[in-house]
Amino acid sequence: MNAFMIYLPIIMAIVGLLFMGIKRTWVLKQDAGDGKMKEISDHIYEGAIAFLKAEYRLLTFFVIGASLVLAGISFIVPTTHILIVIAFVFGAFFSALAGNMGMKIATKTNVRTTQAARTSLPQALKVSFGGGTVMGLGVAGLAVLGLTGFFIIFFHFFMNGVWEGAIIDGVSRTPSELMTIVLETLAGFSLGAESIALFARVGGGIYTKAADVGADLVGKVEAGIPEDDPRNPATIADNVGDNVGDVAGMGADLFGSYVATVLAAMVLGNYVIKDMGGNIQDAFGGIGPILLPMAIAGFGILFSIIGTMLVKISDDNAKEAQVQKALNIGNWVSIVLTAIACFFLVQYMLPETMQMSFFGEGAKAISSMRVFYATIVGLIVGGAISSVTEYYTGLGTKPVMAIVQKSSTGAGTNVIAGLATGMISTFPTVLLFAAAIWISYALAGFYGVALAASAMMATTAMQLAIDAFGPISDNAGGIAEMSELPKEVRTRTDILDSVGNTTAATGKGFAIASAALTSLALFAAYVTFTGIDGINIFKAPVLAMLFVGGMIPVVFSALAMNSVGKAAMDMVYEVRRQFKEIPGIMEGTGKPEYGKCVEISTKAALREMMLPGILTIGFPIAIVLLGKLVYADNNQLIAEMLGGYMAGVTVSGVLWAVFQNNAGGAWDNAKKSFEAGVLINGEMTYKGSDAHKAAVTGDTVGDPFKDTSGPSMNILIKLTCLIGLVIAPILGDGHSSTIIAKKSACCVKMNAHADGLHEKTDCFDTSKYDKKRVEVNLTTTNGVTVGTVTKTENGKTTTEVFEGTEEDVKAKIESTK
Amino acid sequence: MNAFMIYLPIIMAIVGLLFMGIKRTWVLKQDAGDGKMKEISDHIYEGAIAFLKAEYRLLTFFVIGASLVLAGISFIVPTTHILIVIAFVFGAFFSALAGNMGMKIATKTNVRTTQAARTSLPQALKVSFGGGTVMGLGVAGLAVLGLTGFFIIFFHFFMNGVWEGAIIDGVSRTPSELMTIVLETLAGFSLGAESIALFARVGGGIYTKAADVGADLVGKVEAGIPEDDPRNPATIADNVGDNVGDVAGMGADLFGSYVATVLAAMVLGNYVIKDMGGNIQDAFGGIGPILLPMAIAGFGILFSIIGTMLVKISDDNAKEAQVQKALNIGNWVSIVLTAIACFFLVQYMLPETMQMSFFGEGAKAISSMRVFYATIVGLIVGGAISSVTEYYTGLGTKPVMAIVQKSSTGAGTNVIAGLATGMISTFPTVLLFAAAIWISYALAGFYGVALAASAMMATTAMQLAIDAFGPISDNAGGIAEMSELPKEVRTRTDILDSVGNTTAATGKGFAIASAALTSLALFAAYVTFTGIDGINIFKAPVLAMLFVGGMIPVVFSALAMNSVGKAAMDMVYEVRRQFKEIPGIMEGTGKPEYGKCVEISTKAALREMMLPGILTIGFPIAIVLLGKLVYADNNQLIAEMLGGYMAGVTVSGVLWAVFQNNAGGAWDNAKKSFEAGVLINGEMTYKGSDAHKAAVTGDTVGDPFKDTSGPSMNILIKLTCLIGLVIAPILGDGHSSTIIAKKSACCVKMNAHADGLHEKTDCFDTSKYDKKRVEVNLTTTNGVTVGTVTKTENGKTTTEVFEGTEEDVKAKIESTK
Repeated sequence: MNAFMIYLPIIMAIVGLLFMGIKRTWVLKQDAGDGKMKEISDHIYEGAIAFLKAEYRLLTFFVIGASLVLAGISFIVPTTHILIVIAFVFGAFFSALAGNMGMKIATKTNVRTTQAARTSLPQALKVSFGGGTVMGLGVAGLAVLGLTGFFIIFFHFFMNGVWEGAIIDGVSRTPSELMTIVLETLAGFSLGAESIALFARVGGGIYTKAADVGADLVGKVEAGIPEDDPRNPATIADNVGDNVGDVAGMGADLFGSYVATVLAAMVLGNYVIKDMGGNIQDAFGGIGPILLPMAIAGFGILFSIIGTMLVKISDDNAKEAQVQKALNIGNWVSIVLTAIACFFLVQYMLPETMQMSFFGEGAKAISSMRVFYATIVGLIVGGAISSVTEYYTGLGTKPVMAIVQKSSTGAGTNVIAGLATGMISTFPTVLLFAAAIWISYALAGFYGVALAASAMMATTAMQLAIDAFGPISDNAGGIAEMSELPKEVRTRTDILDSVGNTTAATGKGFAIASAALTSLALFAAYVTFTGIDGINIFKAPVLAMLFVGGMIPVVFSALAMNSVGKAAMDMVYEVRRQFKEIPGIMEGTGKPEYGKCVEISTKAALREMMLPGILTIGFPIAIVLLGKLVYADNNQLIAEMLGGYMAGVTVSGVLWAVFQNNAGGAWDNAKKSFEAGVLINGEMTYKGSDAHKAAVTGDTVGDPFKDTSGPSMNILIKLTCLIGLVIAPILGDGHSSTIIAKKSACCVKMNAHADGLHEKTDCFDTSKYDKKRVEVNLTTTNGVTVGTVTKTENGKTTTEVFEGTEEDVKAKIESTK
Repeated sequence: MNAFMIYLPIIMAIVGLLFMGIKRTWVLKQDAGDGKMKEISDHIYEGAIAFLKAEYRLLTFFVIGASLVLAGISFIVPTTHILIVIAFVFGAFFSALAGNMGMKIATKTNVRTTQAARTSLPQALKVSFGGGTVMGLGVAGLAVLGLTGFFIIFFHFFMNGVWEGAIIDGVSRTPSELMTIVLETLAGFSLGAESIALFARVGGGIYTKAADVGADLVGKVEAGIPEDDPRNPATIADNVGDNVGDVAGMGADLFGSYVATVLAAMVLGNYVIKDMGGNIQDAFGGIGPILLPMAIAGFGILFSIIGTMLVKISDDNAKEAQVQKALNIGNWVSIVLTAIACFFLVQYMLPETMQMSFFGEGAKAISSMRVFYATIVGLIVGGAISSVTEYYTGLGTKPVMAIVQKSSTGAGTNVIAGLATGMISTFPTVLLFAAAIWISYALAGFYGVALAASAMMATTAMQLAIDAFGPISDNAGGIAEMSELPKEVRTRTDILDSVGNTTAATGKGFAIASAALTSLALFAAYVTFTGIDGINIFKAPVLAMLFVGGMIPVVFSALAMNSVGKAAMDMVYEVRRQFKEIPGIMEGTGKPEYGKCVEISTKAALREMMLPGILTIGFPIAIVLLGKLVYADNNQLIAEMLGGYMAGVTVSGVLWAVFQNNAGGAWDNAKKSFEAGVLINGEMTYKGSDAHKAAVTGDTVGDPFKDTSGPSMNILIKLTCLIGLVIAPILGDGHSSTIIAKKSACCVKMNAHADGLHEKTDCFDTSKYDKKRVEVNLTTTNGVTVGTVTKTENGKTTTEVFEGTEEDVKAKIESTK
């Protein structure tokens, strides 16, 4: 069984992709409707493909540029291998492929959903959710396939597929150190995926809101024609936007999270093995803790498939509640199955008891069951954060109704109420999140945190299916409207769309929770890669960087919001021009130039995504360069500064994500409440009232919040931490930490004192020992302990090996001081 | 000279208070106008006094409750003395006294300014700025008097006024340790001041905006009567609000900052002395570094007096620019004089070279000139942050004009633009701020950071005079309007009011910059009090608390905003009721019940300030209790958790303060721009246009931002750090750190190993050595070194003393291991 376990996730990924293929064939076989429907759907498809092509063209340059930089790093830093470039390119490619696949199926499913809605609601749900399933499985399958595949390749390349040390470039490397190189190289895959995700999320977010706001401002407000009216030239761009932003953007985001989470858990798994003396005996070649996260991800795909099969309704007269219930059943079944699988996988793959070191608390014996509990923490907190999100943003909830009430005194009070709701919603979310960090860490250290995130992400396929079905239904409704189909069709798609709005909000809650946990895991991996003792914010430069990091998400959000404003204005001018210049456009005899609007959105999105992108990628690099300039000889301090920056971005990013997503969601549903009518000061108030207009203003503010800047925070924090991880080897040589050295950096210094330096009172200037290492490894197998002492000074390495009882070996090691 | 230096600040404080008395007499001698003016002014005065009385009644209970808690702490923690309660009560009392004095003079000066404006603009400026000067000098004078006075008392009580060690409760204490007790007790004074400030700022902020919004919503919008119309029952409350919020709130805020900054600098001064071996030889009884911050504060009062004397204009036809110039001249003269004084004081009072230890970089020799440079950094950054604030919020600047342009497409785009402006403004502000931390730390450690803050705060009297003159002029205009005086009177007061708006915005920039630097200094003091090695955010519980801390300012802001909304609604209903029920009110024959509205604002403000107050004070305590529950035996970790929380509050608080203040200021001036007319899309647009209405909506959102939640952040972060400082002794025994031990915690452990424990591989579990201390002190005087080694184990202390050359003594100390 042992060696097989490494291939299992790949097999499951392939199963997922096969199932996706079957589902895809089924969806594409559905009737795509006739005449006008097909025509509109083709427009949307072409618009989406046009955007993707333009985006990929631009990103090709980015990937080439970034590859050159990475190649440069791999030449400078001995432990960074050139293969990282290959991993990076493939990561970018897989991410783009996943986005491409998802978008294609979404733009094919929309019209088929409309057509299905002509027959019945259950059929419409089946088709739209089928499209979502294709998307979800595609993303998850490619993620697991790519990550696991490259892991196997690198594991064989660097370690010949076995847990054994080797001498590389004259330096003796323990297996853990070699595995670190494997994982550092694998980080390139994650970096590639996340870079594409940044541009997909930000570009897509700008695209969708520019088209949406532009279409509304001129169409609904100025010309007084309804939403999705075919006379509005921006209406196709608006529908393309739903796919570009909500489907491709969300897909790339979760693809990135998925890969990064599993990667971080693997890094920390390697750290667990190091903590246990560098070698464990298990049925998986000694790398059980590293394989576990991949196995969980693999099983997650299987259970997602099962979950998606359960999503169905039978009653054509079903309302939102039944549809929501169907989705919930599928979701919960896949989550519960994952929890059960985690129990058996943890029991099966981890040593019964592990030695983990806790900062400031020393080493502790951790039973594998505690790792299982950590995964449960992840699943519970993921669910709880979704519920909190639903409470603050759902139709008819107390906070949303409060915003509705405040609309009666004008737009100002509506906006204040929405902002306050978003802000207050950070309270339970952050407390839950802090509890998740604390508890999962207390249970099983940072490995526990990473596995909590992994468990949460395991059902990504299912989550994404639920997420993607929303915009597909939204599109289906748009097509029904534009094709002037009977009213009952739109009613059916509206039910799906309405449920989709709720799932979109909770999906965003899930996305930010997973991004935050992922970032923490990456953050932990960063610390182990750099080999620093921690990140001490009492050092002023570190604290300064914590401030700078905290500022970045705020400025990033502002840039994204301004971009939407600028792009929307471009759209407004174009729509106005067409209304004026195209004869008969308002009468429906003249044909609007949809393509022009699509082009404007595309160009604006691509142009505007550059600055936030540069900010995200440039700042960590700038900090390292600045640090090198000031503290040329103190890599540890620079590593801490970058760590402080990462922490600042993560903390502030989570806050601003929750604030913006929930404020936006709450405003949206406050506005929607007026459609059915709401009771304000004892009077029923409807669409068109002053209060409703105030609510529309709030929704306008909320649109970029919830669809552009808010969701971008996920990528910002993950990418920041990933860049840190890739830079890490430049800043430290975490590879030479050892069982003793890891317990406390103090010990490294003590060994150094023991070399005869301890008489000096200035012995605490650690920079002096940066180039000098004493590594001690102890391994006990069947009662026999093998100890190695490796001393490295000025590039020369001497190694001594001792064998015997543990006591004996320890005494001998002490004597070498 | 030496002993005299300790009394000098008190003398300067008394000089300041005397000058204040003279100025006060002069202002009160001015003509207070006649009939209606006097009547209205009396209403405002009575309303303000009524609020203060109600507030103080409530706060008396708070002070009693908090005193009991502090007394409890002083019984539990041996190093916390019961005198902290006395200090706390006096701090609260002095803060309240300063607020009371300021508010009284402000409400007396307003009508005199109106009367002066009947003759000429220069006279009106002279009177209004005279009132501001009284306020500024009162606050600064009381702050220095109280702090210095209590320092002298405690210095004599605990140390007999000399820098010598003593045995207390059987434990031998070094002079540094005794001084720490002095300063910890003094922290009670600061805590008292800041607690009052919290309620004054939050309560005042809610009061002023509730009255303002309430008056506007019913008066301006519903009834269509102008601002400050005497028929509006809420108009007196509105004018009271200006005093309660902008005068008393700002005064209490800066009083707190001033005290906290000087205190923190003194704590770090003590730390400098410890770093230098526990004794320095200077002409100030060996406490020059501790006295320096007080001396700078004292001279700052003198230079503020000189500055205020320079604020005058002679031209009755002067415009805003000339008035602004007059204020700027006074301000800059006092700042430059302070910079010069810093040069001489630093040279005079500090040892030429100091030994300071830098985390991770070891001890460094720091020349006193570097401390001077740090003060210059503080002055420059303070000025630069004010300029940045002016750029983002000033009338006619690019960002404000951009908001004006966006108003043409509706309230939604105006709000988005305002939010984005506030968010982007964090970029230069935070970078400047990070640079200030980094550079002043690099120059002279945390002592440098604290002195940068002290220098910035030195001219508080002048800053406050400039700040307070704005609301006084605003009130004067209101009285002119309500008394139906000739138009030219209002024109003159409007010029002053308009300048006051700009100074209010830059004043807020100054307040947050000083609060942030103060918090950092307090943060540094916290670390030294608890004796921890730093705050390592790689420990999961610490990181979790960083998240929680980051969330608090967001939730606090939301609570404050919601409070304004609720209180404003109360006001709306009351004004509506009066309009309906009082016959002849709209014709001017019926008299509105002003008192009722004042009462409503008062009650609402007091009621609504409780929850934010509890949040601020309760969370740090909750964290310690939770920490104790989980890590009963690991005080160091709990101290780090609280430190992480403090850092989170500070980083997030600064961001949200800058964001909210600047967004609010920008919206305000975007709206004001319409008064003179603005060019939008080639058309001149004025008040009453749709674009203007959109801008009014933005301003409504901005009002609580800039006047309630934004400025509250200052107090939130300072108070959080102060509470941490007062809790600190519970969590650690920072008193037993020593020259060696301080350099790195490592060393404490190394000493412990040297005791025979170093053979154990689990020697890195530091908790084992918590109760065991080895203290080493070295003092070299005229070439003779005296070394003491004090070992404490299980409460027993043994001390050995060595004398000789430095080499010799060191060797002997080594031999005791």
